[in-house]
Amino acid sequence: MAKVLSGAGLRGQSAGETALCTVGKAAAGLTYRGYDIDVLAEHASFEEVAYLLLYGALPNRVQLQDYEHKLMQLRSLPEPLKAALELIPKDAHPMDVMRTGCSFLGNLEPEQSSEQQPFSGQLASADRLIATLPAMVLYWYRFTHDGVRIDTQNSHVASLAGHFLTMLHDEEPSALHTQVMNVSLILYAEHEFNASTFTARVCASTLSDMHSCVTGAIGSLRGPLHGGANEAAMEMIEPWQSADEAEAALLTKLANKEKVMGFGHAIYSERDPRNDIIKKWSKKLSEETGDDHLYSVSERCEAVMWREKKLFCNADFFHASAYRFMGIPTKLFTPIFVCSRITGWAAHVMEQRANNRIIRPSADYTGPDHAEWVAIDDRP
Amino acid sequence: MAKVLSGAGLRGQSAGETALCTVGKAAAGLTYRGYDIDVLAEHASFEEVAYLLLYGALPNRVQLQDYEHKLMQLRSLPEPLKAALELIPKDAHPMDVMRTGCSFLGNLEPEQSSEQQPFSGQLASADRLIATLPAMVLYWYRFTHDGVRIDTQNSHVASLAGHFLTMLHDEEPSALHTQVMNVSLILYAEHEFNASTFTARVCASTLSDMHSCVTGAIGSLRGPLHGGANEAAMEMIEPWQSADEAEAALLTKLANKEKVMGFGHAIYSERDPRNDIIKKWSKKLSEETGDDHLYSVSERCEAVMWREKKLFCNADFFHASAYRFMGIPTKLFTPIFVCSRITGWAAHVMEQRANNRIIRPSADYTGPDHAEWVAIDDRP
Repeated sequence: MAKVLSGAGLRGQSAGETALCTVGKAAAGLTYRGYDIDVLAEHASFEEVAYLLLYGALPNRVQLQDYEHKLMQLRSLPEPLKAALELIPKDAHPMDVMRTGCSFLGNLEPEQSSEQQPFSGQLASADRLIATLPAMVLYWYRFTHDGVRIDTQNSHVASLAGHFLTMLHDEEPSALHTQVMNVSLILYAEHEFNASTFTARVCASTLSDMHSCVTGAIGSLRGPLHGGANEAAMEMIEPWQSADEAEAALLTKLANKEKVMGFGHAIYSERDPRNDIIKKWSKKLSEETGDDHLYSVSERCEAVMWREKKLFCNADFFHASAYRFMGIPTKLFTPIFVCSRITGWAAHVMEQRANNRIIRPSADYTGPDHAEWVAIDDRP
Repeated sequence: MAKVLSGAGLRGQSAGETALCTVGKAAAGLTYRGYDIDVLAEHASFEEVAYLLLYGALPNRVQLQDYEHKLMQLRSLPEPLKAALELIPKDAHPMDVMRTGCSFLGNLEPEQSSEQQPFSGQLASADRLIATLPAMVLYWYRFTHDGVRIDTQNSHVASLAGHFLTMLHDEEPSALHTQVMNVSLILYAEHEFNASTFTARVCASTLSDMHSCVTGAIGSLRGPLHGGANEAAMEMIEPWQSADEAEAALLTKLANKEKVMGFGHAIYSERDPRNDIIKKWSKKLSEETGDDHLYSVSERCEAVMWREKKLFCNADFFHASAYRFMGIPTKLFTPIFVCSRITGWAAHVMEQRANNRIIRPSADYTGPDHAEWVAIDDRP
C-alpha cells in the first residue's frame, strides 16, 4: 500500500539526491556545487557557471576560452527549424515557441547514445541547447514582430548575455547591460528540485533523451505558479507612475486579497538571496537610463509588502524593472529564464542518469471500489 | 530538512490522490474509475473509455454518438502543423515527431483559460488531441515514408481504432482488426501514476497548459524504461522462425544475463491483467493471417520466461505480435501507446488542477558543503 505522506505536492519530501545545489540552507542560502550565489554573481560569467554545473568544476582560463568558443560556434539554427519557427503565429505564447523549438531540434539533431556508450552525446546536446535556445525565441520574435530574419550565428559577441541583447536590439549592448544580463542568467541557472527541474528528472528517469527532458521542463516552467512571476510583477507595476501611487494601489490590492506576484517563496522563509543582487543592478540601470519612477515604485512595493505582510521580494520582483530598463519586452522575461535554467536542467538530467531508478510514485485512491458494467441502453 | 524516504524513485510513496485508476490491487487488478479492465476490454469501445476517463461516467447512447461525432469532426490538421511535420526528416524518432506535433498544436490552438474561468477549454483541448495525435504521426509517417499527403479528416470510419488503421493502410480495416485495435487502445489508456502520467501531473501542478503537460508526458513515455517495451519485444522475436529456435535463443540470452523486454512489471507482482486479453486477440489474428510461427514463438517465450525466471508477460509482449499481424511497422508501436494514453494523461491533468498544490519535492544534498572561490588564473 502507498505510504500516506503529510502535505500534498511532496513538500519537504526527498525525491532523490543532488550534488548540484542547496536552497534555503539556514533559511536563506543558495549554492551551486558549494559556491555561494553572491560570489558567483559577483565574480563569474554565465559561461563559467554553466561549465561549473555541467562539467563539475570551475574552468581554468584555457577551458573557459575553449568553452566560450565552442558555444559561439553552436549558435546557428538549422534551416528546417527556422522554417518551423516561421510557421508559428505572432500571438503565440513565447514559452510555447521555445518548447516547440527545443522539441523540433530533437528531430534534427537527436542526442547521441548507444548501448555501448549510453548518452555519449549528452554534453553536446546540452551545450547545443544552451547556445540555441536564445536564438530560437528571438528568431521567432524578430520574424513575427519585426519582419526580419536575424542571423543568429553572431561570432563577435562572446557572452551569451551580450548575444541575447544583440539579437533583440540589432546592436551590441553596453558593458553595463551585458553585465546585468550575465548576472541575471547566473541567478536563474539552478534551483534544486523545483517543478521544472523535477519534470526533467522524472523524464530522465525513463532514460528518455535530453530534448524530451528539456522540452518537458520548459512546459512546466511555463506555468504561472513557477516561471512567469517576473512578467506578472511587471504587469502590476507598469501602470504606476510614482511611489505614492504604487503604495495606494498595492494597499487596495492587499485589502481586496488579490495575489501579488514576486513576493515570498515556497522554500526560502526569511529572504531570497537573489533579491539583493538583482536589486542592486536594477538601481544602477535606473540611474543610467534616467528612470524617474520605475525603480522607486519597485522599492516602495518592497517596503509596503514587508511592512504589511512580512513578505520579502523573491528573485523575480526586481528582475522586472531590470529587464525593462534594458528594453526587453515583458513577454520575453520567462524565455530568458529558460535560456538560463537549461544549464541546471541538463546537469540534473545527467545526474539522474548517473544513478537512476525510474521515478514512479503511487497514489491514494479516492474513486469507487467497484463499478458494475451497465449496458449502454440501460444507462441514465 | 528533507525527510529521507526508503527506496529511490518514490516507489511505494504516495504523490497525490486519484479517482481514475487502481493498479495491482490484490496483486493483479486494473480498474478505470472502478470498472475492471476485463469488462471494459470485452464490452466497451475506446471512445466509451475515453468518455469515462474524461467526463467521469460511461456515456449513454446519445452521449456516445455525440462524442464519436465530435471526435470525428476534430480530425483534420491545421495547415501550419502539416507544413511543420513535413520539415521533420524520415529518420526522426516517431515519438519525437509526436512530442513536436503536440507542442506545435499548442501554438496554433492554445488551451482556452481565463482568470474568471480557469482552464475552461481543457476538455476541448483534450478531445482535439485525442482526435489529432494519430493523424500527426501518420501524416508525417506517410509523407516521409510513402511520399503521400494523407487526408486525415476521415468522416466515414467512426472509431479511432479504424481511423488509425485506415490512415496507415489506405483502406478500411476488417472488423477483426478494428476490434483488436480498439481493445489495444483500451488496455493502454490509463495506468495511475506511471512516469509519463506523473510528468503530466508535475507540469499541471504549475498550472501550465494542457499541451505542455501532454508534450512532457510524450517525452517521458519515449524512454525505454517506460514506453517502447513492445517495440523491443518485437525486435527480439522477429528473427526467430520457430518456437524451438526461440527457446534456444532465449535461454542463451538468459545465460548471458541480457535484458528481455516485455516481462515482469514494477507494480504487478503476480500477473499483468492486460496480458490474457491481448494474448487472446493475438491468437485470433494469428489464425486469421495464416501465421505459421510468430504466435507460437511468442507463446514459447512466455512459457520459457515463466519456467526459468517466474516472470510473466506484461501488456507489451503479445502486443508486439498482434500489431505485426495487423501490418503495423514496429516504429509505430509506441506512438499507438500515445494515441491511447492521451486519455489518461488528460484526465490526470484535470484531476491535478481540481485539487492542486505545486509538486516541488526536496532533495538530499550530496555535494560539497562550502566551496571557496578561486581566481581563474589560480585554477588547476
